[in-house]
Amino acid sequence: MYSIGIDLGGTNIVSAVVNEKYEIVAKAKTPTNSPRSAEEIFDDIARVSIEAVEKAGLTIEDIESVGMGTPGTVNGEGIIEFANNLGFKNVPAKEMLFERLGVENIFVENDANCAALGEAYAGVGNGSNNFVAVTLGTGVGSGIIVDGKIVNGVNFAGGECGHMVIMVDGEQCSCGRKGCWEAYASATALIRQTKKAMEEYPNSLMHKIAAEEGKVSGRTAFDAMRKGDIAGIKVVEKYIKYVACGLINLVNALQPEIICIGGGICNEGETLMKPLRRYVQSERYSIYSKIQTKIVKAELGNDAGVIGAAILQKVKQ
Amino acid sequence: MYSIGIDLGGTNIVSAVVNEKYEIVAKAKTPTNSPRSAEEIFDDIARVSIEAVEKAGLTIEDIESVGMGTPGTVNGEGIIEFANNLGFKNVPAKEMLFERLGVENIFVENDANCAALGEAYAGVGNGSNNFVAVTLGTGVGSGIIVDGKIVNGVNFAGGECGHMVIMVDGEQCSCGRKGCWEAYASATALIRQTKKAMEEYPNSLMHKIAAEEGKVSGRTAFDAMRKGDIAGIKVVEKYIKYVACGLINLVNALQPEIICIGGGICNEGETLMKPLRRYVQSERYSIYSKIQTKIVKAELGNDAGVIGAAILQKVKQ
Repeated sequence: MYSIGIDLGGTNIVSAVVNEKYEIVAKAKTPTNSPRSAEEIFDDIARVSIEAVEKAGLTIEDIESVGMGTPGTVNGEGIIEFANNLGFKNVPAKEMLFERLGVENIFVENDANCAALGEAYAGVGNGSNNFVAVTLGTGVGSGIIVDGKIVNGVNFAGGECGHMVIMVDGEQCSCGRKGCWEAYASATALIRQTKKAMEEYPNSLMHKIAAEEGKVSGRTAFDAMRKGDIAGIKVVEKYIKYVACGLINLVNALQPEIICIGGGICNEGETLMKPLRRYVQSERYSIYSKIQTKIVKAELGNDAGVIGAAILQKVKQ
Repeated sequence: MYSIGIDLGGTNIVSAVVNEKYEIVAKAKTPTNSPRSAEEIFDDIARVSIEAVEKAGLTIEDIESVGMGTPGTVNGEGIIEFANNLGFKNVPAKEMLFERLGVENIFVENDANCAALGEAYAGVGNGSNNFVAVTLGTGVGSGIIVDGKIVNGVNFAGGECGHMVIMVDGEQCSCGRKGCWEAYASATALIRQTKKAMEEYPNSLMHKIAAEEGKVSGRTAFDAMRKGDIAGIKVVEKYIKYVACGLINLVNALQPEIICIGGGICNEGETLMKPLRRYVQSERYSIYSKIQTKIVKAELGNDAGVIGAAILQKVKQ
């Protein structure tokens, strides 16, 4: 049997047909073109889903379940209560998908949670049922899986680990709090830290690198560091320390089997992962435990979302 | 049927016979007199347990299960891997209890987790199965319950939320990290903050209050605040902000139904709870959710541990 996994993003809608081995059989996508009405967006979701089914050489009768990941908070009835970047408030996503696709088993979940599920079951997690996925992107997203199930909390808003404060009265976060992990460990934060260091170090290589690239990016400081630039080294060291701080917090609270780290910054690979592991190893509370949380790089990339959405049936029933 | 719940503490060993309604039928206790050998301590545990059974007018045949809470890390085989304040390393607690009591069903668990279970099932939680208990004592202890089960993590060291950093490079914590929640929100931290303010404010009422009490305690600043002392007000306001910071972190990550707060500082009652609730309300990520985490005061006091230990059978099987 096959499932449809949908990733409704701020930029693109991606739909994939996924088989029982969690492999993508076919995929289709279209721009989200947000802001638009939920009706228009769901018409497009249905259209690309059917397109993916046809690409797979199947018909909708072959589809056992449909899962969708979306930004924002999704309640137990499959209603998107709030998704600010789509302008959605109380959108009955499950019902709208059923009207358009006619499939009985429909599951809707937060996108970071879907990505966590995808990595836990079909990616680096290799079936692990105590798993945390952290995404270092524009923000810091996360999904927590305990005993094989997503930790949604009492109001389906759980898993917002990016909004745990690591610095009381620190940097302003978009959520309203000050000093959130996201305000120190996101790509956005790294870019801000890089720009600040560039002001302090007018002779840093980072100026040249940014000029060549046409902008300051999450890579600027890492590239400068690799060339021995002192300011670049300082930025990267501090940034990695902030990332590690939140990871160790998660280890101490949950001691998951695996924490997987995804998002653009992860392309730095072992340059990022090695010092992170060193920090976690030296600061975790569980110094005497024989078994320790593994810190690994996400491996499914953007596919984690659609695969995780397709798996929702497995964990939600 | 009845269960025995044991609370092995650094100071006292308490054993209670608990009935099916989670009520304590009889209780006995003896000093721990640590450091001593595990054999001696377990002989005393067995002795007070039998004493509690006799006080209840029962015999050991009436006991369905034995549960014990202990400081430190307890693995899945009921071995206390490490408990620094008892000087225990790899103590086979389950086996030692069986040898001494002859009851088949024996469960051993970290004491903070037992207290959380007690409050969740028999105290303020009223059966809630998504619950976090936080204890503001010498340290900051915590136990996390998700889906009715204790979150032990992969190595049984989970739930150490007191060792989540809220201030990068902040106050030194006993765990080795800097800036842990415990280093700001424990009674120990409050006393340190009070002493520091007393140095800064030589005319503060806190000096008189501490002199009368013979020492600076967790109550000193609260008492001064109630009498309008500026320095006392400042200490309490800052302390409550630190406590709230960690609570909001837990809300954002887990969105439990209830967070219950125990420990000596809780005797301040609504003086503490009201501003904590205000902070959580204004800073939590889930501002749009209809259902919100309740922040409540623990109600079982020291009994939470023995009752929770007696309940272990229910959640561990």
